[in-house]
This record gives sequence, C-alpha cells and structure tokens, in this order.
Amino acid sequence: MNPKKKSYSLGLDFGTNSVRALIVDTANGDEISTAVINYPSGEAGILLDPKDPNLARQNPADYVEAMVRVIKKALTQAKKTKKGFSPDLIIGLGVDTTGSTPLPVDKNGLPLAFHDEFKNNLNAQAWLWKDHTAFAEAQEITELAAREHPEYLAKCGGVYSSEWFFSKILHCLRVDPEVFEAAHSWVELADFIPALITGTLSLEKIKRSRCAAGHKAMFNDAWGGLPAKDFLSQLDPKLGQLRDRLYNQTYTSDQTAGFLTKSWAKMLGLKPGIPVAVGAFDAHLGAVGAGVAPGKFVKIIGTSTCDICVWPNDQPLADIPGLCGIVDGSVLPGYFGLEAGQSAVGDIFNWFVNYLQPGGPKKGSHEELTKKAAALLPGESGLLALDWNNGNRTILVDQRLTGLLLGQTLHTKPEEIYLALIEATAFGALTIIKRFQEYGVEIKEVINCGGIAEKNPLVMQVYADVLGLEMKIARSSQTCALGSAMAGAVVAGKINGGYNRFEEAQAAMCGVRSQTFKPRPDRHQVYQQLYTLSRQLHDAFGTRNWSGNLYHLMKDLLDIRDHQLEKAREASLSKRKKKI
Amino acid sequence: MNPKKKSYSLGLDFGTNSVRALIVDTANGDEISTAVINYPSGEAGILLDPKDPNLARQNPADYVEAMVRVIKKALTQAKKTKKGFSPDLIIGLGVDTTGSTPLPVDKNGLPLAFHDEFKNNLNAQAWLWKDHTAFAEAQEITELAAREHPEYLAKCGGVYSSEWFFSKILHCLRVDPEVFEAAHSWVELADFIPALITGTLSLEKIKRSRCAAGHKAMFNDAWGGLPAKDFLSQLDPKLGQLRDRLYNQTYTSDQTAGFLTKSWAKMLGLKPGIPVAVGAFDAHLGAVGAGVAPGKFVKIIGTSTCDICVWPNDQPLADIPGLCGIVDGSVLPGYFGLEAGQSAVGDIFNWFVNYLQPGGPKKGSHEELTKKAAALLPGESGLLALDWNNGNRTILVDQRLTGLLLGQTLHTKPEEIYLALIEATAFGALTIIKRFQEYGVEIKEVINCGGIAEKNPLVMQVYADVLGLEMKIARSSQTCALGSAMAGAVVAGKINGGYNRFEEAQAAMCGVRSQTFKPRPDRHQVYQQLYTLSRQLHDAFGTRNWSGNLYHLMKDLLDIRDHQLEKAREASLSKRKKKI
Repeated sequence: MNPKKKSYSLGLDFGTNSVRALIVDTANGDEISTAVINYPSGEAGILLDPKDPNLARQNPADYVEAMVRVIKKALTQAKKTKKGFSPDLIIGLGVDTTGSTPLPVDKNGLPLAFHDEFKNNLNAQAWLWKDHTAFAEAQEITELAAREHPEYLAKCGGVYSSEWFFSKILHCLRVDPEVFEAAHSWVELADFIPALITGTLSLEKIKRSRCAAGHKAMFNDAWGGLPAKDFLSQLDPKLGQLRDRLYNQTYTSDQTAGFLTKSWAKMLGLKPGIPVAVGAFDAHLGAVGAGVAPGKFVKIIGTSTCDICVWPNDQPLADIPGLCGIVDGSVLPGYFGLEAGQSAVGDIFNWFVNYLQPGGPKKGSHEELTKKAAALLPGESGLLALDWNNGNRTILVDQRLTGLLLGQTLHTKPEEIYLALIEATAFGALTIIKRFQEYGVEIKEVINCGGIAEKNPLVMQVYADVLGLEMKIARSSQTCALGSAMAGAVVAGKINGGYNRFEEAQAAMCGVRSQTFKPRPDRHQVYQQLYTLSRQLHDAFGTRNWSGNLYHLMKDLLDIRDHQLEKAREASLSKRKKKI
Repeated sequence: MNPKKKSYSLGLDFGTNSVRALIVDTANGDEISTAVINYPSGEAGILLDPKDPNLARQNPADYVEAMVRVIKKALTQAKKTKKGFSPDLIIGLGVDTTGSTPLPVDKNGLPLAFHDEFKNNLNAQAWLWKDHTAFAEAQEITELAAREHPEYLAKCGGVYSSEWFFSKILHCLRVDPEVFEAAHSWVELADFIPALITGTLSLEKIKRSRCAAGHKAMFNDAWGGLPAKDFLSQLDPKLGQLRDRLYNQTYTSDQTAGFLTKSWAKMLGLKPGIPVAVGAFDAHLGAVGAGVAPGKFVKIIGTSTCDICVWPNDQPLADIPGLCGIVDGSVLPGYFGLEAGQSAVGDIFNWFVNYLQPGGPKKGSHEELTKKAAALLPGESGLLALDWNNGNRTILVDQRLTGLLLGQTLHTKPEEIYLALIEATAFGALTIIKRFQEYGVEIKEVINCGGIAEKNPLVMQVYADVLGLEMKIARSSQTCALGSAMAGAVVAGKINGGYNRFEEAQAAMCGVRSQTFKPRPDRHQVYQQLYTLSRQLHDAFGTRNWSGNLYHLMKDLLDIRDHQLEKAREASLSKRKKKI
C-alpha cells in the first residue's frame, strides 16, 4: 500500500466567552483535535459596566493571547492522538467570530486598546455583539434610512439594530469623542484576526468580510458599497468623514485574506505562508459546516438561534421583511446568504429551570422536566406560550416584546409549562420558515446544530411535529469551527490537498447524523391548530395591524417598569445624598 | 353581684374540605370554642376522577360523620376552657355550607349514596360546588333562558353556571339516567343538614334555603318560585317532572328549620328541642358575621372569594349583569343580597407555590415569596397577569377562561410572578367593585375575612393600593361559623337569650380589627395605569365585543385539550381491551 499524504486544515472559532481551535482531516472531515481557551478578562471574557446593563465589551488582547494558546493546545493534542500528524500538514486556516463586534484601530490597524492611554477605556475595546448601549443611535439610523434610503433597510429586515457596526461607532462618537477621534478606522473582529496573522492590517491591505459588511454595515454593491457619505454625514459629519477610512470592497470566505507571516507562524507553531481565509461570522461558517445548500435550512440552536439558508444569486429574490439580512456571498459564494433568528431559545428553558426552579434544583432539572414533558400529548395541557422573553428578532424585529403564557389552570404542572416553552420556540421557528417560504425560498429539510439539537431529542421531536419537516442533526458538534476549517481547505485549493469550492469541501467534509426526527402526522395536525392560535397571539401583541390593538400593551408595561425603576434609582440616590 | 345567666349559640360551617363548629357567647360574640374535622373520603374530602378534571364530588356520609365528631370536640373543649359552660346553655344552632352542592335523595330525603347500590357511584354523591362537569348543560340552560325567560338570568348575572343546581341535575340525567331516575328529589347541602337533625327531611317538611334557591336555582317569587315546568321540560321532559318533587317555598335564615330531635340531640350532646335555623351558604352567613350592611362590602377571601353586599329591598335596584345573584333575603331579611366572586384567589397562590414550587419547597414558600414581593414596586417587574386559572365567576361568568401571564423576560423572578398573581386577584376585585358602583350600589368600605386577609398583610396592602379603598378586617377569623351561630341566636329569640333580628345580633356579636390598610396614593396611581392594561386583556380574551376577537382563544385551547384527553382515554382503553 502506498498511503496517500494526509492534509489537515485549522478552523478558529471566536465565540462570546472563549476561542476554539479545530484540526480537521480535509479528506473526510475527521476532527482529529479540538481545544478551547477562555478569554481571561472580565466576567467570562466580557467587560461589564455595573452602571449600565447594556454594555458588553471585550479586551482585544484576550483574542490574541487565547488564540496563541488554543492553537498550541490543539496541535499538542493532535500530535499525541493522531499518528503521523505534523503541523506542517496543515494546509490552510479559516476564522469565524461573533459579530457585529467592531474595534477602533490606529493607523497601523492595531486596536486602540493596545495603546497605554486607552487600555483602560471601555470605549476603546472591542464592542461585543451583545452590547446594546447604542439603542438610541440605532433608532436614529433606522429613522433616517427609512426616510431617505429605505433600500438600506430592505436587506436587513427593516430595522437597523443597536448591535450593529454604525450604531456602535455613532454611539462612541457621541459618548467618547476622544476615542472616536483617535480611531483611524474601525474593523470587525472577523476582519482583524485574519489580517493580524497575515500582516495585512493596514487599510490598503485588509480584506473586509462580505458577511460582516453586508449583514451589519448595510454594505451592498447595488448602492456602491457602504451607505453614502451624505447619509452618514447627516447622522454626524464626522461619521461621514470616517467613511473614507473604511472600505469599498468586501470578500467572501473562499478568498485568501493573506498568508501566515513567519513571525506568526513561529508563534503559533504552524507552517509559514499557508493561506488564511477571509473571516466571517460564526453562524454563517457554521451553516457551511452543517451542510447548508439551497433547500437545506440550517438552525443553530443555542441560547438564541441563528437560522441560515442560501438562494442562488442568479434567481430572483424579493426583499423579505423581518429577516436579519440578505447578503450576496455571506455564506456561500454565488448565493444570497439569508439570516434569521430567535432572540431566545435555550435561554428560555434556562430561565425556567434556573430562575423559577420549579420543584427545586433536583426535581426541576432539564432532564427531569424533559422526561415528564415527553409523556404529554400536544395540546393536552391547554397551554400556549410566546417565545418573546428576550424580544423577537425575526420576523417582528422588536426588542420590546416580552413573554406570554396562557391557559394555566390550578393544576398546571412544571413539565407542562416546560413543554409549552419548547413548543413556543418551535412556533417561533415555524413563523420564520413560513416567512421564507411565502417569499419563494424553498425549504426541503432542516439541519440543526448546537448542544440542544444534539442532546435533547424531545426538542427535536417537537420541532419535527410542529414544523412538519424531518429534523436532521449536523454530524459535527462544532460546525462553526468546522466551517472555518473548510474555508481554510478551500483557500489552500485542490492542488494543495484542499478544495477549489465550498460545495466540494462540503461533499467531503460534512454531513448529518443517522438519527433523524420525523414528524408524527397526528401530532402535526394538532400542532397546526395550536399554531393558528399562537399566530393570533403573535399578531395581536406583535403587530400594529391586529384590529384589537394590543400592540401597545407589552410596551406600555415596559414604560411603566422603566419609570418605576428610574423613580427607585432617584429615591435611593437622594437617600444617599441625605446621608452624606 | 348577680351574674346574668350566659347563653351560647352554635354555628356549623360545612366547608370544602372540612366542617367547623363554633360556640359563641351570644352577649358579645366571644368565641369560646372552635373545632374542625376533615372529611375522611377522597383527596382532602373531595372525590375526584383522574380522567375528568372537571369532576368534584363528596361523600354525604362524610358530612354526617364529621358533624358528629366536630360538635363533640367543640363541646369538650368549651367545657374545659370556659368555666360555667354547659351544653344546655346553647340556645340555638345555625348551619352554613358550600353551594351549590346538591345531593340526589330518596323518598325519605336521605342521600342515594347511603344506599348500597349507589354508594360507589360518583353521580349519586354530593355534587360539590366546584364540580364543572355540567358546562355544556349550563350553556344549554343559559341559551334557552336567554330566548324564553331572560328574567331568570337577569337575577344571576346573565349566565347560568355549570356550578349550579339545574346544570348539575341535567348533567346527571344525561350521563347517568339510573341515578336520576332513582332520585326522588334533590336537596342542597344547606337544606339537608338542618332537615336531617330536626327530622324534617321529607319533601313536605323540609325548609329550603332562600339563599341557595335564589342564587343557584333561579327561584324568585316574581315568577312563582322555581323556573316554570314548561321551561324545564324543554330542557328534558324528565327535568320538568322533577319540578313537582322540588319546592315552591323558601325561607331566610332568621327562620327556624325545625327543632333538634331527641335522637340527634343525644348523638350530638346537645339539648333536644333547640331551634335550628334555615341553612344558607357559607359566604352569605359569613358576610353577616363580618358585619355586612348597606355600604359595607364584604370580601371573603379563601381559595376563591365571595363578595357580598346588601341593598334595601324597598329601594330601586337594576339587574346588574355578571353578578352571581341578586336575591331578596339571601343575606339579611329585608335586603337584597348581592353576590359576586372570584373563582380563584388563594388557590392561585397555592398553585404557584405547591404545583410549580419555584425555588423548591423552602425558598418558594408563601412566607419567603411574600417577603421578597413586598420589596417590589408596582409595575417594576413588567408583569401582568389575569386571575382566571379557575375561570371567571364575576363579571364574565365564564368557566372556560384560563390564566394568563404576560411580560416575563429572561430575568423574571419567582417573587415577581407571585406579586403579579396577587395584583391579578386585586384587579379582579376592582372589576367587580366597579361593576357594583356603575349600577348605583354604594360601597364605602371593604371588610375582608378569611385566612389570607388575616395572615398576609401584603395582599391586603396591595388590595388597598389597587382598589384605592381602606381595607378593614373582620374581627372574627371564622365569620361563616359566627354568622351561623348568629342565625342560631336569632331563631332562639331574645326571650331565650338571643336576638329577634340579625341587625341586633350584629351590633352585639361582630366587629372589625383595629389594624387597617390604607391606599398609598403614589402606588394607587401606578396601579390605575396597570389596571387599564389589565382591563384591556380582560376584555380582549373575555368578551365578544373586543374588536380583535381573541374571545375564542382560551376556549379553543380547552377544546383541543379535551379532544386530546379523549383520544388518550380511548387509546388506553383499546390497549387494555387488547390485553384482555
């Protein structure tokens, strides 16, 4: 036998609390080594402000330090466990990150936070995706765009979010002009990492991610890239000026961001000169690693969900209202990447188990509740819930919605509520899928990834029964890192033991598990009735066009709450003053 | 000194789970002895059907057995603790019971359940007030009355309830004709007990309670007593025939049902021949014991509430829609007795604590939750709930409504939900009071009774803040039993050491406590905002005239639930058959 020379690729997945490295056999997707390193700063890697619950930042030095350690750890392990493995066999590297997570950078493209004068300034750090300090600026941008450039909003669901690029930069300009002035440019974390290790940090060289730009910065070739300078100047003349120091071109993740520099190669223990793919967001490369393709809808189910599908970019596609984004090439080159999502899924189950603790810590565990809930029939409890405990991302795009549970009697049991919450997230998923289908996007199967999909068969079975679609589960438990590794294999190319196109990499490197969940027709029928009722609640409380006019109700409650909390804050402040 | 001879009276209070006996000094209402005996059968005295959550029956033998034991216990204790007490000093006896709690009886007036052939038949037992199996029959009766005799409904809120006399009897006729045929007549528990111990069980002798007849059986002198035979025959000819074996006359509780027979006197350890008052419902005699009078609104807060007030029967009073009943003399002779109520109050708090057990049995106790909830501001949680976990008795008169909780986020805590549930019951109370006021019934103060009113100052304070009225608390902790004892004193008469009229008994024997709860204006203001929102939910889900048409939603859910339970029953049945 003449053993063929093995090739491997490396995927780096920068998550919210940690970074993961995955080394994959490019021939078949075998995951030969994986390692995780937590970010050292803040609380679980997040810099918080006790005075502002909206603030969530990260120390850029964490990314670098954790990356070096995680790659070394993965390599060490691979050498131990895989006979014949050598770091030299790694042919390429891909990177995915959270987003929108922008960083202010200096003229050299290095984070301002690396400078002594800014290292303790929260506004000079990375603005983590879940930072919501810029809610007022988001509204301002949305209103201006709605008036002057509705096309900007049409591709991102009609509302520009406080989590996104320009909201955060504008907020920085407003609250910390010093940081804004000192920033030569702003980069997404997904841009920064590949540029850092390939020596392409400078504005001229850095290759910006199409995924990040399109989904979070209103970038679209149809209007010449980023929003017009005029538009940005109306928000603030300085924001208009910044546009010249941003970018006009973006790249998909089958493109090479650059080649690993000698010094970084040494530091990371890898071969110098290997190609590094242009970065993208975790969910988007995660969808690639799960096997996304036309007709195959990928659900990444975690604390919240991200739903990804693709549609050929040479076929007509309407602007789909309520989606998080429609971006050509954000997932696969040649396809529109379509993103949707639910603001809370696992988080709702965790809220019920950890905050309410029904039955106490033992009797109310996920395991116990799941076991009991599995014995219930659809509709048997008479309960109906909405999955809005963290607002609604798709299709209502409304953070100011809250949860609802209806139908409880004096006999309602914890497991019945638990099942109702699972069903609520399934109804939420169905509303999203129906929206895609209404606008002509074909969905033939659903591939699920994430811990809940892998570990909770009840959730998957309820989803199958509610959606009326077979639920498949991605083979890999780390589809984001796998998708990044696949990008590494694609930028290496067939000639180096990789692939020329993502589709080829997918055919060889990813798949679904043999266990799937099929809809049970009798339950699907009952769930169709329940969904009709759920949709009425959804429309009554979530839309302005429901005749009963309950749209205001949850919002009024939040106004009253905010007013009460403000009063309490003032009262405690004046109390403290009196003491002084 | 020449000590005046003491007189005592005995009140018997047949509750949902137990019977209470109270011995009272007729001069000043001093409660010298009290005893409680639980009904021995079923779950906490209630016979349930695991297959039908609507079913709630009681074993009539329990009443008799528990009555004998409870009177003996009270007498023994009185002898021990009260110097000079002797059973011979008891001058009269009053009885209150739950209702509508009808029992099918034989020709001798004894419960069918006493016969061997029926003793295990749930339909031959007492149909406890909270039995809801007859919801379909209630609707049928309501519809027929609305069409042919709207006057019947006008005095009982416009809707005839599934909890009431004729609904239950008609349901029995439909589901168990054998029991129906075997029943010579049907009696309310409030009629049965006084008749039993005075030897007046026969149809000719038994004195039916005005309170029970007027509030639950559409009895009114204006149309000649019970509903017309024609009317009942249209529901079922056999129901029409039954009318001849019911009654044409009713009595208020200042009237004597009869005199204690020798044999019962011996069995109970009382003096033979003492007068026993005509029975009434617990809430109605409870209101008497709390000091009900024009302008004084009595709330009896327990697992559910009963709200009672009176209005002079020589002053004009419109039919108030949604009330449980308007019955001349049901509370005090010479006054209309007006009854309203909430289907669940304490039961909702108990459901939350006992069924959901938030935080487990220790952290989630009523005490802990109350302590934490007391620290919250109105509206601070952003939550809003409806108190419909057991349907809505007043003003919607709709058993097929269910609970609703709205506004939960990922951070909602158990004590926040607990407070929202308390507030929900307060909003329910406010809706009732507003309805009374809208129809011209004056309400100057609220007198609360029951364990929750006495033991949970938070509930009372929230009620004061929500209602904008001072909350007073009845001096006695057992106003129902006290009211019964007062009836005993009235039937004995002044000449025997009692009183000639209820008002005289009230002046001497009852009062309110010194601690009261005043509304806090700033909180009342916030609660007015929250009430507006709560009322919108109430109208949207509870009435047909809300434009958004969500009226069907809770009912559709219950239909689906019932259908699923039915399917499950059939499946388990066919499984069992296969095994055989």
